[in-house]
Amino acid sequence: MTLPEKVLLLREFIADGDRNGLVGEIAEPHPADAAEALGLLEPEEIARFVEMVGTADALQVFEFLPFETQKEALKHLDRPTLAHLMNTMSPDDRADLVEELDDEFQERLLSLLLRHERENVLRLIKYPDDTAGAHMTTDYAILRPDSDVQTALEQVRLQAATKETIYYIYVVDAARRLQGLVSLRDLIVARRHSRVGDIMSKQVISVKADEDIEDVAKLSSRYDFLAVPVLDDSGRMLGIITFDDLYDVITEEATEDMYHLANLDTDEKIDSPLLRSVKLRLPWLLSNLGTCLVPAYVVSLFSGTIQDAVALASLMLIVASLGGNAGNQSLTVVVRAMALGQINMAQNRRVLTKQVAIGMFNGVIAGLVIACIAFFWFGNPWLGLIVWLALVGNLIIAGLFGAMVPIVLRRLKLDPALGSSIFVTTATDVGGYSIFLSLAVLVLPHLTGTLP
Amino acid sequence: MTLPEKVLLLREFIADGDRNGLVGEIAEPHPADAAEALGLLEPEEIARFVEMVGTADALQVFEFLPFETQKEALKHLDRPTLAHLMNTMSPDDRADLVEELDDEFQERLLSLLLRHERENVLRLIKYPDDTAGAHMTTDYAILRPDSDVQTALEQVRLQAATKETIYYIYVVDAARRLQGLVSLRDLIVARRHSRVGDIMSKQVISVKADEDIEDVAKLSSRYDFLAVPVLDDSGRMLGIITFDDLYDVITEEATEDMYHLANLDTDEKIDSPLLRSVKLRLPWLLSNLGTCLVPAYVVSLFSGTIQDAVALASLMLIVASLGGNAGNQSLTVVVRAMALGQINMAQNRRVLTKQVAIGMFNGVIAGLVIACIAFFWFGNPWLGLIVWLALVGNLIIAGLFGAMVPIVLRRLKLDPALGSSIFVTTATDVGGYSIFLSLAVLVLPHLTGTLP
Repeated sequence: MTLPEKVLLLREFIADGDRNGLVGEIAEPHPADAAEALGLLEPEEIARFVEMVGTADALQVFEFLPFETQKEALKHLDRPTLAHLMNTMSPDDRADLVEELDDEFQERLLSLLLRHERENVLRLIKYPDDTAGAHMTTDYAILRPDSDVQTALEQVRLQAATKETIYYIYVVDAARRLQGLVSLRDLIVARRHSRVGDIMSKQVISVKADEDIEDVAKLSSRYDFLAVPVLDDSGRMLGIITFDDLYDVITEEATEDMYHLANLDTDEKIDSPLLRSVKLRLPWLLSNLGTCLVPAYVVSLFSGTIQDAVALASLMLIVASLGGNAGNQSLTVVVRAMALGQINMAQNRRVLTKQVAIGMFNGVIAGLVIACIAFFWFGNPWLGLIVWLALVGNLIIAGLFGAMVPIVLRRLKLDPALGSSIFVTTATDVGGYSIFLSLAVLVLPHLTGTLP
Repeated sequence: MTLPEKVLLLREFIADGDRNGLVGEIAEPHPADAAEALGLLEPEEIARFVEMVGTADALQVFEFLPFETQKEALKHLDRPTLAHLMNTMSPDDRADLVEELDDEFQERLLSLLLRHERENVLRLIKYPDDTAGAHMTTDYAILRPDSDVQTALEQVRLQAATKETIYYIYVVDAARRLQGLVSLRDLIVARRHSRVGDIMSKQVISVKADEDIEDVAKLSSRYDFLAVPVLDDSGRMLGIITFDDLYDVITEEATEDMYHLANLDTDEKIDSPLLRSVKLRLPWLLSNLGTCLVPAYVVSLFSGTIQDAVALASLMLIVASLGGNAGNQSLTVVVRAMALGQINMAQNRRVLTKQVAIGMFNGVIAGLVIACIAFFWFGNPWLGLIVWLALVGNLIIAGLFGAMVPIVLRRLKLDPALGSSIFVTTATDVGGYSIFLSLAVLVLPHLTGTLP
């Protein structure tokens, strides 16, 4: 069934009040597919859907809808369904949703929640977006260390319906301090009368609620964890972050770096409205305009030289273009290595030296090629010589700034990718034009009159 | 304990033959950490480590070592340990390792494998790197549909030690054709005498062995799967791909796109040897050199005009620079949306139109700013006018090529990011210089003598 067919089918079932028809569609082949179709209906229809199939079944699909759609649908739900839905949603998704609402609607929803659920929401929404706390769920399975395996399996079974995962089960003391971890696999293979405390792993890798979520994602992908526990300062469990949320973090983090390297705002989506895209890109273009006034000004200082040997106007472009390209190569390698946790602060100097050396070597080789081209094009060996020297110089600048800009940004605790390509390109433009044109001034008598 | 301390400790334990010391370090806090330290030892030491702690324990750590390190260590293992290690490694990691070996060593290793393990390796290594088949493991848990839950749990328990995951269990018929899926959670909560066939999900989302692994990763992150089953054409199970391998695919895929956008070879790593980095980057710089000869040539055609109004040499840089920046914005948005599966072929025309429109709007606004700057800088309104028009034209070109290049590359079944920024920048450079300088020729009498 195609998506439009599925949309029509759901719409029909909703209009006809055909509950069984709807329930049959929820999980076929997967709730994410039903959500994709449902998300294309009107908010009133989505609300009718939730009321008809009941919150328990509806939630499977509802949690896959975008926040915007969830929000609109909520406004059309009857009060008892709304209350039930909000009280049974998984805590992390619920907190993310509530955070998106305007104050008035937020108030109204909070008033519908049971007291402990309300407190849960209020606790979760206070964590900043990029922290572990903002991505954790409080629905995790727990055990006591002194249970035997038989009892533990029974307890896990009782927790299975309401917990985000039961494959990792956290062993806690009476104060919810984390003592250890057992996987459901461990429990299944253990002898029935073993004690949980004896079979659990005692060294559990955990994070604090204010830890950067990107670091949690790195940790999880390094260790292949299904979930990571979040603790407070006294070692008490606050929640867990599951692998599916970390998938999303890894993807978003990569998008963010790519966008920042291309001077894009992360709020832009491929389907953002036209004027919103225009508005989000404009500040970047204007900053680029500001910075490229510098190389333009540098060139204007040499206008006399260019008038005397106008071939320079063509060749200087090549020096600047290759510099920009080489600078972006170094920048991207360094930014990506930082994102993947492959370089730490202590290695900064080595990284810098290497990028500079790469620039120098490539400058020597590519510079020879372009020197030959310049010589054959304009028939002047001096032009070849200065374009060669200028390219070596500019590719050293490219390596230097390509490595230095992200290193400095990280030192300043900023995103190493943010706006970095503007800095690097400005450096290679200014470097390329000024080195090349300065050298031209030195040998000007040999260049004068050179015309293409 | 810091990494250098851990390295020294392991080295000491190995030299002293202290098996218990080593075993104590394996899982503290996680085998990936022991692997990081072990990877810094000599291959002989790693081999001694494996022999001392025994293959079962050693494998936990060994599978986290880079292939290069595994390969060298294998060469120093005694024959029985080597045979045992290779026969007990997880099939997907083993196949990846064997594939990396030179022919002679590969032969030798294969001869040490039991017949069915050897056939398994030979089957797995024939899948191309970017397919589902190359990333799957054949160690998955299975059940029959007619077992009752009680028996099924017992069978899962027996499979737990050797299977990659027991959290998803695949229900197959006698010919291993996939009938359904039960999660361990389903089994735990089901009534003991229910039949597996009655509680399983019958609509299982699966992939073919030759499917692109990036599509599998998208599927898995869309549906939050722990594992995805791989089937042959007749619906028989070949293996499963687990979430941890898909984590790596998502990360590598993002790295690849970023590298391609910055004209880098994906073989380059932050710690590649200097000369290797030089060699990998040089071809890209030389192609850039080739393409930027075109705008340089265009500029040379206008050398007379530039000599008459040398202010053009400065201003043309701004038009080209902003065009390059805007082109990269469109390119990055489109490439990322393709990677995330957010646009399909049918939407190409809409994507293209929108990017062109964004370019036009931003061209009008940024062009006004630069027109004012040009007017105040050089005191000539005609310069302002032509720089404005040129910027609008060039930002339209930027939107057009930024969207068109990845669309065409995808149509040709090439990576939409590969080399795309070189095409786009060439287009905006040529566009910027030629529009601006052609307009300048038209109004030249009004510009002559304009000097900064």
